[in-house]
Amino acid sequence: MSVFTTVSTADLQPFLQRYSLGQLVELKGISAGVTNTNYFVTTTHGRYVLTLFETLRADELPFYVNLMVHLAQHGIAVAAPIANLSHQYIDELNGRPTLIVPCLPGAVIDNPNANQCREVGEMLAQMHQAAGSYTAQMPNPRGPAWWSATAQTMYPHMSLEDAALLHQEVALQSTHQRDQLPRGVIHADLFRDNALMNGAAVGGFIDFYYACNDVLLYDLAITLNDWCVLENGDIDDERAQAMLAGYQSVRTLNDAERADWPLILRAAALRFWVSRLLDFYQPAAGEMTFAKDPGHFQRVIAHHAQRSNFWIE
Amino acid sequence: MSVFTTVSTADLQPFLQRYSLGQLVELKGISAGVTNTNYFVTTTHGRYVLTLFETLRADELPFYVNLMVHLAQHGIAVAAPIANLSHQYIDELNGRPTLIVPCLPGAVIDNPNANQCREVGEMLAQMHQAAGSYTAQMPNPRGPAWWSATAQTMYPHMSLEDAALLHQEVALQSTHQRDQLPRGVIHADLFRDNALMNGAAVGGFIDFYYACNDVLLYDLAITLNDWCVLENGDIDDERAQAMLAGYQSVRTLNDAERADWPLILRAAALRFWVSRLLDFYQPAAGEMTFAKDPGHFQRVIAHHAQRSNFWIE
Repeated sequence: MSVFTTVSTADLQPFLQRYSLGQLVELKGISAGVTNTNYFVTTTHGRYVLTLFETLRADELPFYVNLMVHLAQHGIAVAAPIANLSHQYIDELNGRPTLIVPCLPGAVIDNPNANQCREVGEMLAQMHQAAGSYTAQMPNPRGPAWWSATAQTMYPHMSLEDAALLHQEVALQSTHQRDQLPRGVIHADLFRDNALMNGAAVGGFIDFYYACNDVLLYDLAITLNDWCVLENGDIDDERAQAMLAGYQSVRTLNDAERADWPLILRAAALRFWVSRLLDFYQPAAGEMTFAKDPGHFQRVIAHHAQRSNFWIE
Repeated sequence: MSVFTTVSTADLQPFLQRYSLGQLVELKGISAGVTNTNYFVTTTHGRYVLTLFETLRADELPFYVNLMVHLAQHGIAVAAPIANLSHQYIDELNGRPTLIVPCLPGAVIDNPNANQCREVGEMLAQMHQAAGSYTAQMPNPRGPAWWSATAQTMYPHMSLEDAALLHQEVALQSTHQRDQLPRGVIHADLFRDNALMNGAAVGGFIDFYYACNDVLLYDLAITLNDWCVLENGDIDDERAQAMLAGYQSVRTLNDAERADWPLILRAAALRFWVSRLLDFYQPAAGEMTFAKDPGHFQRVIAHHAQRSNFWIE
């Protein structure tokens, strides 16, 4: 489903000549992913993933690509971009900007256990620390200004009751200053389908194309809201506890973060409630995906609103 | 044998806090190597090799370390140096400059077959190509000026016959200009014990601390003289043919290189004949190694001198 731009072996062979990766053995489209074209490229040296960017332009890529380079240099489990013979990470194939990275070990999992959630929390904190020396900047394009403006365009599509709840949630977040919370580079989309698990260990975090500078705690909340969620939108205590313990084994949350945690969990759910509403009511032209249920994050927020135990000692 | 500076887990734990590599699980000295101290460091994230440099100073390391970084970025099979939280590759432990890299797959092999020689030749050529965009410079400290001067100090230790042969070989090389040959960054010490083979594939080249700018063909000759040698100092035709084919599958030797190949093979053997003589007659203070037989490379030269088939079509 995600091969929007077709690549043939005849296209790929001259492209690979610009790299130090050996001779092409096999080329195979990857069906996961909804915005870019991805291929498995097997050469005499190993197995790689080739991405053709369908929406991002070459001049928009350096923040993300250099971030991956930086994190890989620090031993964080991410795919390290491979440079071509001109020492450029971004090349071009069939009219699209490209990136090639080694295959990471592991697979996407749907049902993580508590140990895996602990490892993801730990690696996320290591990632936040390692990105502390990354100097490029990227504002979050999906922050409060975006969700407030987008929510306005969604209310007419929604039931009066749901619209009122969304409006109330946007208003709640707008009364809250986040300036006091530690900031840095965040992944901003670390759902289960953006991590490969290699048994209990993190094989690699992938898909850094929402990464930006924002509140670190918000990244943890986005991650926890997905990895530790039950089908009904409630959070599984054991997994949540494990993820927070893993995170705090590297970076202890400070008092301001502890105080704001309940609200940040709701902010993290709100951002995806709004983007799913947008995908549902105004799908992007040509996007070959079926929209995910926006109601899921509405239920996550409802459970957070009722919760008294937020797993932080 | 190669643990000159002892590291305890108590020393290592605060050191590892400066990295994003998880918690220490096991620390174990490595017995290979003769100049630096090496440890296997296993953490919750994986397995690494920690090197404490016993002779090179921190300010002498960037050429080598940044070269490893560069080659790894190009997908060459080398260990990628890991940066600390200050984004520095070179740190310090127990008074020594340090480097930490991931463990590479594979093992050192004594008896390579022709396929493995082909793969080493291919990866060497890829390395030469990928290093084309590396901008730092390092003259070869073991070039003709060095071997001429060092040979002078060795003649008094040698039999008259051997001294005459060495003198003749130095004189032969001194009549020869190498300026017409393609140059670049070379490994300069790619013996079998400086590569890990992972089955038929190159797991990784290691020990880049003789790397420098010199004639590319000379690097191939150093490599071939070790990987394809027989016990009597002669070269095994099948392995030599395979290594040259592997190399030329990436970079075809030009006419000047073909013409100079017989002489460059002898130059590559001469450099190690002289360094082994030096190790044998004037071992460096404190070096815990037993000197290797200098006569081996004398025999390699004798065989090259008699050869008529040099495996290049």
